[in-house]
Amino acid sequence: MNGAYLIGGENRTSSETFGGIEAATGQPLDGAFSITPQGDIAQACALAAAAFDAYRETTPAARAAFLEAIATALEARAEAIIARAMLETGLPQGRLAGELGRTTGQLRLFATVVREGAWAGAVIEAALPDRQPLPRPALASRTIPLGPVAVFGASNFPLAFSVAGGDTASALAAGCPVVVKAHPAHPGTSRLAGEAIAEAVAQCGLPGGVFSLVQGPGNDIGTALVADPAIKAVGFTGSRRGGVALMAVAAARPEPIPVYAEMSSINPVLLFPGALADRAEDLGKAYVGSLSLFAGQFCTNPGLVIALDSPDLDRFLAAAAQALAGVAPQVMLTGAIAAAYAKGIATLTAGEGVSIVAAGPDGNAQSGAARLLTVDAAHLLANPALTEEVFGPSSLVVRAKSTDEIAALLEGLEGQLTATLHITDADHALAAPLIPVLERKVGRILANGWPTGVEVSRSMVHGGPFPATSDGRSTSVGAMAIHRFLRPVCYQALPDALLPQALQAANPQGLPRQTFA
Amino acid sequence: MNGAYLIGGENRTSSETFGGIEAATGQPLDGAFSITPQGDIAQACALAAAAFDAYRETTPAARAAFLEAIATALEARAEAIIARAMLETGLPQGRLAGELGRTTGQLRLFATVVREGAWAGAVIEAALPDRQPLPRPALASRTIPLGPVAVFGASNFPLAFSVAGGDTASALAAGCPVVVKAHPAHPGTSRLAGEAIAEAVAQCGLPGGVFSLVQGPGNDIGTALVADPAIKAVGFTGSRRGGVALMAVAAARPEPIPVYAEMSSINPVLLFPGALADRAEDLGKAYVGSLSLFAGQFCTNPGLVIALDSPDLDRFLAAAAQALAGVAPQVMLTGAIAAAYAKGIATLTAGEGVSIVAAGPDGNAQSGAARLLTVDAAHLLANPALTEEVFGPSSLVVRAKSTDEIAALLEGLEGQLTATLHITDADHALAAPLIPVLERKVGRILANGWPTGVEVSRSMVHGGPFPATSDGRSTSVGAMAIHRFLRPVCYQALPDALLPQALQAANPQGLPRQTFA
Repeated sequence: MNGAYLIGGENRTSSETFGGIEAATGQPLDGAFSITPQGDIAQACALAAAAFDAYRETTPAARAAFLEAIATALEARAEAIIARAMLETGLPQGRLAGELGRTTGQLRLFATVVREGAWAGAVIEAALPDRQPLPRPALASRTIPLGPVAVFGASNFPLAFSVAGGDTASALAAGCPVVVKAHPAHPGTSRLAGEAIAEAVAQCGLPGGVFSLVQGPGNDIGTALVADPAIKAVGFTGSRRGGVALMAVAAARPEPIPVYAEMSSINPVLLFPGALADRAEDLGKAYVGSLSLFAGQFCTNPGLVIALDSPDLDRFLAAAAQALAGVAPQVMLTGAIAAAYAKGIATLTAGEGVSIVAAGPDGNAQSGAARLLTVDAAHLLANPALTEEVFGPSSLVVRAKSTDEIAALLEGLEGQLTATLHITDADHALAAPLIPVLERKVGRILANGWPTGVEVSRSMVHGGPFPATSDGRSTSVGAMAIHRFLRPVCYQALPDALLPQALQAANPQGLPRQTFA
Repeated sequence: MNGAYLIGGENRTSSETFGGIEAATGQPLDGAFSITPQGDIAQACALAAAAFDAYRETTPAARAAFLEAIATALEARAEAIIARAMLETGLPQGRLAGELGRTTGQLRLFATVVREGAWAGAVIEAALPDRQPLPRPALASRTIPLGPVAVFGASNFPLAFSVAGGDTASALAAGCPVVVKAHPAHPGTSRLAGEAIAEAVAQCGLPGGVFSLVQGPGNDIGTALVADPAIKAVGFTGSRRGGVALMAVAAARPEPIPVYAEMSSINPVLLFPGALADRAEDLGKAYVGSLSLFAGQFCTNPGLVIALDSPDLDRFLAAAAQALAGVAPQVMLTGAIAAAYAKGIATLTAGEGVSIVAAGPDGNAQSGAARLLTVDAAHLLANPALTEEVFGPSSLVVRAKSTDEIAALLEGLEGQLTATLHITDADHALAAPLIPVLERKVGRILANGWPTGVEVSRSMVHGGPFPATSDGRSTSVGAMAIHRFLRPVCYQALPDALLPQALQAANPQGLPRQTFA
């Protein structure tokens, strides 16, 4: 295992190292990963800044080809990446193979988006020399990328939200050089993905500063990265505490910068009476499938289920309890995450009115055991701390006395990534008045499915009001993510020769452009 | 003069009042304006929140008609508004009449934009039930407004950037209720504009909470407004200190919210050798016209001119000095602004290497006297404080020794609203390499004009990196300003009956929609 970090395409090592840990055993893995010292972090940022003007003016065709070259380079390393990721994360082969497909798929989606060119936001208004009382000069605008972006790898998606994941793909697609801080729980996986990107940079003849990968445990590296004056935006997926800390660093800079942190969500699921009457048992089983999938280590884990109290809800709970009792303990991403999960469950079960409906068998210190809890709505309303995210294979079912109580619960929630409705046609009248409440709270509303499984597509929104994210105006999954890293610039009366290609009369890049009289 | 503030369409008074001041004399004007107490600020916010769901789902046609009704109601009060604004701001009749036209014009532009419907961002992806390995559910997204917006009136545009100005128009266009904090330097003008909006709210049958106007001196009212949990975004035009203070309040909330503050800019102007050779005297005269227009009280005032040292630059300076010596002292917006201007000039002229080239005649304590200063590039590079904005009729001309020195000066600048090039065809080779530098620094690049005079149009960007604004991803002037107050929401597998009209199969609002296979 090569333990070097990558500064502008160059392998570098330092005297201080750290190692990967096997998730399943807590034992050290092979490989000594150099911890990137402050000077090299600063140099990665300086190289990114130096590469920015050249990289941002690559043609859409060239930039798309680069994104596709990254995908190809990842696929060439698929076996090694998956094998190492299995050790470092404890996630199974099939899941990681699927995640790699998602990762290359989103790179290729962004290649398509870049080629289409709508992201360039070209708007043209011709001069009106005869307008009264004043002439109008020729005006035109386009978007330019913000500048070098700091990306933080996430623990729970070692590929799709990590070194070559969605934040990196969308920032590179926008024309921003990227400096990635690898998640310290999968340094080897990060290194392999970083090699793939660096190879694509070289293959495509781009400046090395377009991509750097820094490594190390602790918070100092990330803090230095976000504080570096060359960095102009931040992409992060992780804990609320981590995201809020980076927001504070970014806001305290002499030049504050945007932070796109995807942080914390319990993803409320509403079970309506018609749906429960129709299929309580099936819902109960599917619910356990969703909440325990890969040890529940998803931002979109269904952590809160809300329903009117009824015998059908009891049927749902009975089926869920039965399914959950059979969920074997699963290896979690890290020992620290397993410990935090156990602590979170202990805090939650100590909450007034909370009871355990079902418990999966306990495992070792590296594992998370499934838990199903209930509480009534009155207790939840009295103690909003019960809605704090517990990252792992657990969920809380809330019994409500009335639709008004459900509406009050929803109004009291913080921002969420998703909300789910299980409904039949007969439930529409009950559901309709809750939709506006949910719209104010979440980034995605779904019906008759489960929130885990986020499509990478044109209309996907993986976002939502704080604390689901630090910036609810955007998404970190799907084609719209490119807009996070762009800003408009207007050109007034500039001679054609000085205009960017995107706005030149001949439209040499063939971009779609809006023209207004 | 009615001194009541407006809470959800209701006139209210309090026991504490403040008064308007005649800008020209510093003497009190008629009218006692009630200072809005904290309880009524909170109520304005609560009413805005209560009105939000209804207001945001008005049809594009209804919302556009409302914006047009505001324009009509302002026009019906034109005489009173202009007369009062002349007293409160010292700005002349013609300027204020033009500004009122700009204000009603931008309301009508947003009405057009709302009717067109692209702001709704409707994207539709049909279900792919047979896709392998997994089916795709039906997905669709649209934008929804962020929620109630707090808008701060600006001192220097008592109409176009104030109660019924661009921030209010774009927020209302997006579907956000608005609570305006009037600028205390023009309480009467604010009251009259507020009456016009409240009248339009009532006429259009909208909930009163769609608009409130709070009044008072000091910072407590604005701080309380931005801190109120019902407020979801902030629009501000004013000083850097004021904007940065509001950013801090917004970031410190339990739920941080976006702040769009337009703050500080010195708008560099580059004079190229060909242009100077061609028309040094004309440029000198036009420069003084721009820098002294309405006492230089523009965000886009050309505060910094940069050129290679040359005899042609001397010609430019001589013509500018001659023109500036004839600029009479002009009444400034407030005595405090006049005092700050005098202090800013004193600080600037005390800077090492800075000399006064020309001075307009001094006036009284309410006035600003024009000043033209020079410095060489080396001194400016050594002392970046010389590039801090001095709000008023002054500007600093920088003599550079080389194009490299000019590039270094530009790289050292903070973010700006605009950059201007005076060029001929012969200058293109010198100018071209500076364009990328300017793109990174500013929101608008213009050629052979002056930055004052901002077109309200489709491609205008009145924005730029910090500290020009708090959020360079947006504009506060022009059609694109509506996007500041919108965020995307995704709907997955929702039955047609529960989808918002924007995404229903029948497209009842006739919105433009993007569909992807």
